Amino acid sequence: MSTSSIPKLSLLPKNNPYFSLGGKDIWSLINETAAAKELSSGEKVANLGQGFFSYSPPDFAIKAAEDAFKIAGNNQYAPAGGKPELINSLRKHYSKKLGRELSNDEIAVTTGANEGIFSAFFGFLNKGDEVIVFEPFFDQYISNIEMPGGKVVYVQLHPPKDFDSKIVDGSDYKIDWDELENAITSKTKMIVINTPHNPIGKIFSIDELTKIGKLAVKHNFIIISDEVYENLYYNSNSFPRIASIDDIEIQRRTLFVGSAGKTFAATGWRIGWVIGSKELIPYVKAAHTRICFSSPAPIQVAVSKSIEIADSTNYYEDMRKQYENKYKILESVFDELNIPYTRADGGYFLLVNLKNVKLPELDWPELIAKKPRDFKLAYWLIQEFGVVSIPPSEFYIPEHSDVMSDCLRFAVCKDDSVLEDAVVRLRGLKKYL
Amino acid sequence: MSTSSIPKLSLLPKNNPYFSLGGKDIWSLINETAAAKELSSGEKVANLGQGFFSYSPPDFAIKAAEDAFKIAGNNQYAPAGGKPELINSLRKHYSKKLGRELSNDEIAVTTGANEGIFSAFFGFLNKGDEVIVFEPFFDQYISNIEMPGGKVVYVQLHPPKDFDSKIVDGSDYKIDWDELENAITSKTKMIVINTPHNPIGKIFSIDELTKIGKLAVKHNFIIISDEVYENLYYNSNSFPRIASIDDIEIQRRTLFVGSAGKTFAATGWRIGWVIGSKELIPYVKAAHTRICFSSPAPIQVAVSKSIEIADSTNYYEDMRKQYENKYKILESVFDELNIPYTRADGGYFLLVNLKNVKLPELDWPELIAKKPRDFKLAYWLIQEFGVVSIPPSEFYIPEHSDVMSDCLRFAVCKDDSVLEDAVVRLRGLKKYL
Repeated sequence: MSTSSIPKLSLLPKNNPYFSLGGKDIWSLINETAAAKELSSGEKVANLGQGFFSYSPPDFAIKAAEDAFKIAGNNQYAPAGGKPELINSLRKHYSKKLGRELSNDEIAVTTGANEGIFSAFFGFLNKGDEVIVFEPFFDQYISNIEMPGGKVVYVQLHPPKDFDSKIVDGSDYKIDWDELENAITSKTKMIVINTPHNPIGKIFSIDELTKIGKLAVKHNFIIISDEVYENLYYNSNSFPRIASIDDIEIQRRTLFVGSAGKTFAATGWRIGWVIGSKELIPYVKAAHTRICFSSPAPIQVAVSKSIEIADSTNYYEDMRKQYENKYKILESVFDELNIPYTRADGGYFLLVNLKNVKLPELDWPELIAKKPRDFKLAYWLIQEFGVVSIPPSEFYIPEHSDVMSDCLRFAVCKDDSVLEDAVVRLRGLKKYL
Repeated sequence: MSTSSIPKLSLLPKNNPYFSLGGKDIWSLINETAAAKELSSGEKVANLGQGFFSYSPPDFAIKAAEDAFKIAGNNQYAPAGGKPELINSLRKHYSKKLGRELSNDEIAVTTGANEGIFSAFFGFLNKGDEVIVFEPFFDQYISNIEMPGGKVVYVQLHPPKDFDSKIVDGSDYKIDWDELENAITSKTKMIVINTPHNPIGKIFSIDELTKIGKLAVKHNFIIISDEVYENLYYNSNSFPRIASIDDIEIQRRTLFVGSAGKTFAATGWRIGWVIGSKELIPYVKAAHTRICFSSPAPIQVAVSKSIEIADSTNYYEDMRKQYENKYKILESVFDELNIPYTRADGGYFLLVNLKNVKLPELDWPELIAKKPRDFKLAYWLIQEFGVVSIPPSEFYIPEHSDVMSDCLRFAVCKDDSVLEDAVVRLRGLKKYL
């Protein structure tokens, strides 16, 4: 329909702070730049930008999905709280991980981890309630807190001083505990942690988790731990979970979030879960019921089966080995060029510091021109080398966008051949050092 | 974990008007009563309660789903606005239905129609904005309007005076136009219509839709038309759509909502769509992106294929014929017993008026005892005959719960054998007349 000649509808909302309708969001901008590069160069770029998988979910998961659709009942509404078989698989899986028996009413199935986190905010937040979020943060948290009327309070994960000159570890990024405690007010209702952390790759230590847990008890707020990369940890034999801390007062204030998409290389499946004390879970379920009513039923059945198979095989161990190798491939080019990065404790991102790269002056697109240096680096890397990454300033509020403005985030959840191609291309950085 | 000995967490929200944590919702209550009846009687009840299908989606849809999972890319994030192939199928399908060419940016794919409607409310409503909803209403609308801070203003769909003594038509339920116009204020931001209507079965006429459209233009508000039963219309050759009215000012204020679950007998698939002017759709997409990020990708591909197949066969015509027969089966017992009902113009519900049924005094469960008569009728029908229905007072605010307190809603989206079983069972009503 042609509406170009008519004045804009006056009823349209003027201010939706969380709906960036004015400008393009970073994901669209990067994807479009990459698509244009592919069109002009006639060859595929090495896309290490968005964290989707360039390969297929495991055969057993695909098979489980195909089977699930064949059963009539699996195609109808799942119960709002989740299909019983998936709740059952999750209960068994996490009871073992946490070292204590979970019950079914400590588990809520959601439409992806994203909608799980959104439901948790909606279940608890009233207007003006404060939520502490660590910077850098996953961008969806912010709008998801603001939509029910919550207010975000930012606390920094401080990078080590020398992260621009040498290889550091995810664990070198630290919380300033005074800073955190000063951020707590009588309105603090929740804190969000993300471990393994996107984009840093930090895994919170049991010591850090315990300190956070004790603050939650002392000041009476809820912890929501986004653990969607929980199966990808590299430098220890297990993944420290705040929900496994043997303190009933911490446990009853704790929710954690997992993702079938991240676990089974199937980000398009949209099945996640929120697990926590039975005092908290009913609020998450109630919000979820209003938001999505229920989550895709046949995929829930497929995920249930996949968890059972994964738990009875070496699926997770094999995956970790594959990822250690993927990191090795990508890190090799930065080692070669003496470009420092943060060695990830977990997750599937590599944060690289390109301070020493001499960025040429280009004719920047308007949207890039006014952005921090990492946006320009990301744009240039696509244009010059055909390698896609994400500028991490997007994970900071504008006031703090200089902290990581020399860095880029590369996703390694890609076929080895894609990573190897990226390595070849990135060697071209040499003449800009 | 045992928390029974510990005082309740003081941080839990005191007032979530839209989260009915205190009591059971009607769906759970009815389902639990039915399950108990099956356990005690040792046989299946005839479940005509919730609107899920007792049969499978068509073979072509199941096949399309199985195929979709086999392609690696289909298992990763869909674009937030929808998979291009589904947007394409929807564009072709609805361009034909509306008699005008739609463009891709008039279409948003959502995680079921429910999340589509929720996204529409979130896209436009600020605190205090008013939304007009017709009574009886689908219960999710209410919380979905209140969650972004909207206020519901109720306007009645008036039943014909004699609906308790004779068979009436869905079209006999009327809007009082003065009542509607009086409900409009300067804060009115949206109106919700539902056609074919649940639970009445009314299809809004083009005359009614045009009047509503003109009011929307005059008072500058958005129309959201919930058309999830759009393919089920029985008494005419086509389904009147507000979006097809040839008035650009109405069109640019109109959104309508469809559902793959309702179209392909797959309520568990959770794929829906919101279609409307390109001025409005970006707001829906922006909200959806924050709420669910994206919708299940492989199922989107399956729905795309299914729409193409359905459009090139007699799928919809055959479905309507099957449903006309299903209504005929169920109506036969009420005809036999001289129990009046509302003949549905569309949808898959039959609203039956049981005023003349002598309801025995029972030992009502506490939750039922204080409810209107239709709750008792529904409970008794399960206990006495093993037939499950839904009390329509649930679709009214408490002040108006007497309007339909003699009625029950029966879903006919069930295997013919289930309907035939219900007919046999319902013959038992004879001795209570």
